[in-house]
Amino acid sequence: MKPSIPKGTRDFGPAEMARRNYIFDTIRSVYALYGFSQIETPAMENLSTLMGKYGEEGDKLLFKVLNSGDFLRGISPDQLAEASPALAAKLCEKGLRYDLTVPFARYVVQHHDELTLPFRRYQIQPVWRADRPQKGRYREFYQCDADIVGTDSLMCEAELMQIVDEVFHRFGIRVCIKINNRKILAGIAEKIGHADKIVDITVAIDKLDKIGLDAVCAELTEAGLPPAAIEQLQPIIACGGTSDEKLATMRRYFADTPTGLKGVDEVEHVLRTVGPLANAIELDLTLARGLNYYTGCIFEVKALDAAIGSIAGGGRYDNLTGIFGLPGLSGVGISFGADRIYDVLSELDLYPEATTTATQLLFVNFGEAEAAYALRTAAAARRAGIRTEVYPSAAKMKKQMQYANANAIPYVALAGEEEMAAGCLTLKDMQSGEQQRLTPEQLIAKLTQPAAQQV
Amino acid sequence: MKPSIPKGTRDFGPAEMARRNYIFDTIRSVYALYGFSQIETPAMENLSTLMGKYGEEGDKLLFKVLNSGDFLRGISPDQLAEASPALAAKLCEKGLRYDLTVPFARYVVQHHDELTLPFRRYQIQPVWRADRPQKGRYREFYQCDADIVGTDSLMCEAELMQIVDEVFHRFGIRVCIKINNRKILAGIAEKIGHADKIVDITVAIDKLDKIGLDAVCAELTEAGLPPAAIEQLQPIIACGGTSDEKLATMRRYFADTPTGLKGVDEVEHVLRTVGPLANAIELDLTLARGLNYYTGCIFEVKALDAAIGSIAGGGRYDNLTGIFGLPGLSGVGISFGADRIYDVLSELDLYPEATTTATQLLFVNFGEAEAAYALRTAAAARRAGIRTEVYPSAAKMKKQMQYANANAIPYVALAGEEEMAAGCLTLKDMQSGEQQRLTPEQLIAKLTQPAAQQV
Repeated sequence: MKPSIPKGTRDFGPAEMARRNYIFDTIRSVYALYGFSQIETPAMENLSTLMGKYGEEGDKLLFKVLNSGDFLRGISPDQLAEASPALAAKLCEKGLRYDLTVPFARYVVQHHDELTLPFRRYQIQPVWRADRPQKGRYREFYQCDADIVGTDSLMCEAELMQIVDEVFHRFGIRVCIKINNRKILAGIAEKIGHADKIVDITVAIDKLDKIGLDAVCAELTEAGLPPAAIEQLQPIIACGGTSDEKLATMRRYFADTPTGLKGVDEVEHVLRTVGPLANAIELDLTLARGLNYYTGCIFEVKALDAAIGSIAGGGRYDNLTGIFGLPGLSGVGISFGADRIYDVLSELDLYPEATTTATQLLFVNFGEAEAAYALRTAAAARRAGIRTEVYPSAAKMKKQMQYANANAIPYVALAGEEEMAAGCLTLKDMQSGEQQRLTPEQLIAKLTQPAAQQV
Repeated sequence: MKPSIPKGTRDFGPAEMARRNYIFDTIRSVYALYGFSQIETPAMENLSTLMGKYGEEGDKLLFKVLNSGDFLRGISPDQLAEASPALAAKLCEKGLRYDLTVPFARYVVQHHDELTLPFRRYQIQPVWRADRPQKGRYREFYQCDADIVGTDSLMCEAELMQIVDEVFHRFGIRVCIKINNRKILAGIAEKIGHADKIVDITVAIDKLDKIGLDAVCAELTEAGLPPAAIEQLQPIIACGGTSDEKLATMRRYFADTPTGLKGVDEVEHVLRTVGPLANAIELDLTLARGLNYYTGCIFEVKALDAAIGSIAGGGRYDNLTGIFGLPGLSGVGISFGADRIYDVLSELDLYPEATTTATQLLFVNFGEAEAAYALRTAAAARRAGIRTEVYPSAAKMKKQMQYANANAIPYVALAGEEEMAAGCLTLKDMQSGEQQRLTPEQLIAKLTQPAAQQV
């Protein structure tokens, strides 16, 4: 009987919204500090823009929007026999945004004439996926992406590392930034004589953390790699030490593999460019990242003090706009996982006290004449920037105080006959219980002090 | 060949986003100042939540989301014969949000246990309608709503009027606020002996502005009203003077019509409560507003200096949550039309200069060593809050300056060998062309001066 919302979706109430806005505002400020401009794209894209961009599985997970009007027009009874992807594409010419990267690529191609490259954009919008809902996985969630497109300068990778560092510094979350390079992975596949198996190799190696060395080798065998080739992977998998030591090891390993050497060079350049921040970045040769459009540096960020998987990630792609007819544009991007950051901040109790923009001052309503007096003083308080309410009816005092408590309103102003006659108010501090008689001017001065605004 | 987006949807580039954010932030701040808390609801609602809430026409205009997986399951070939609303409802169990009011009503009922009434919420989110796209009408657009639910106090109406006044004051848009009351309209229908024709009467009267008196009378005749009844409407339609004079006229007219008198009382109470603001509010007896869930005061806002229709509107509804099983909750709300406000601000050239959060300072890139020097200074500038970029590659000077111009970056820093040796930079003011040699500290001090930040 009670109404509900689709599974995998969420309502966000006032307290959650205040925290979410704190997350979005923090990321937004850092993006702006690095010269990124915001764009927004429509929730619905043409299905043709989205289909085929996320693999076969992705096509199934796209939410499709039924055509308006006669949605069966031009569809034969035969075609209506089976709920196929082809039929879905006929019934629906639009789909909901699945990520922010493909719409961005579409945007860059569509608006190419208006853009001055390199184009630095950020985008904070929801995306939708028909995934099976489970803990921490939603069918509607926000992505917070920044990309620089139109340059292959490795300075961009370095800047994204600095952005990651700055954002998590502001959040107070200690993180480990992992970096790797797709060219290193390609070099490895080449080196062991199985360049064609690069996808299998990266998918298997990526799981090392989770399933262990033996299971990874078993998976590689299953993928058709001979024991000798798997043997040759051991130095990579076992490669330890600092990032510098690993780079030196890989440089020797890749002596005759130019692709691999290029990857080593790129990572080294990025680490050199970021300066002291390099100490917080770990070269992880097993880092692969699922998305196949990456072609250069890739990175992933994990919280050190919470077991929650990656909370940010990204990488370089060399031809994302090619699918829309504009080849040759290189780009690099970063994406923050707002939902997981929300969970980490909650788990570690890291929200600043002042995330809320809730009411600071409530005027109790004692009746019509008193309410008129309260409204005038409330107007003055608002002019001074104090978030103010007047209780809308002359309900029982107890009820009005309960309202203040339930909404965590820190100050309540009372003005009955006596106060009105004296042109003043009684201000109650709801935390301490303390009461003070003040003129409207004194009240406003008190609540606009920096200390009071923190509440 | 070039990719596109669905008709009636829009991309928003950096310049538009800065302006839109200015609009949303302004409305948001004023809502917060009046003690409203933000919530967000999912883009997709169960179709059952949405269907039947917007009339038959509205049901057709709902965007429906195709079920995932076997979307034909349980549908017989017979049912597949015609693209009926019933079939659509079988193929789709979810739909896209059509407005913010129905999801809010659903939210209040679903979360009733967690809420302390009265509940003051605001919500700024996109909505989707499968309307025929035309100039100024989109299939995806933002609504900016605030509602107070759980009290019938007319103080809320007064507060919403103050919010309207404050928001448009901040925008610098001169407006006329029109108010009326559904009980006055009901009283009129009752008074002329045709209470059952209230919808026809309000729909016709609502058009007076557009189609004129004769056409309205013709429409009323067509609706089945006898000439005598239409004759009795004349004093209303012709009722002139100030709001106070109109109220006095209506009070006499309604001497024996309690419903109408109640409406007059309510409007009078609101005008009394808002104080001097009453001078900006006009009682317009022909204001009806389309939505049939309104039961008390209704209002609409028009820009005085732009011909663009209403830019905000709202009213009181007495039983919106009743459809979801929670009767007896009265609410009142206001909605700002962000797209039309955008157009008015553009037409009247009212955007403040500082709406942008674009880059303030670009470092020219002269090569690797110079870039390293620039990166260090850029880091210091960002720590001081200056939005800063370093051009990512050592492209030709002309190209880098073109980039600065195209992105309206006000300051460019140049540091070649000479500057590096001297530990300084040359700062170029892109508007005046003036150049100045400064230490990094002097540069940062200059750009963090309030005057520079306005740029």
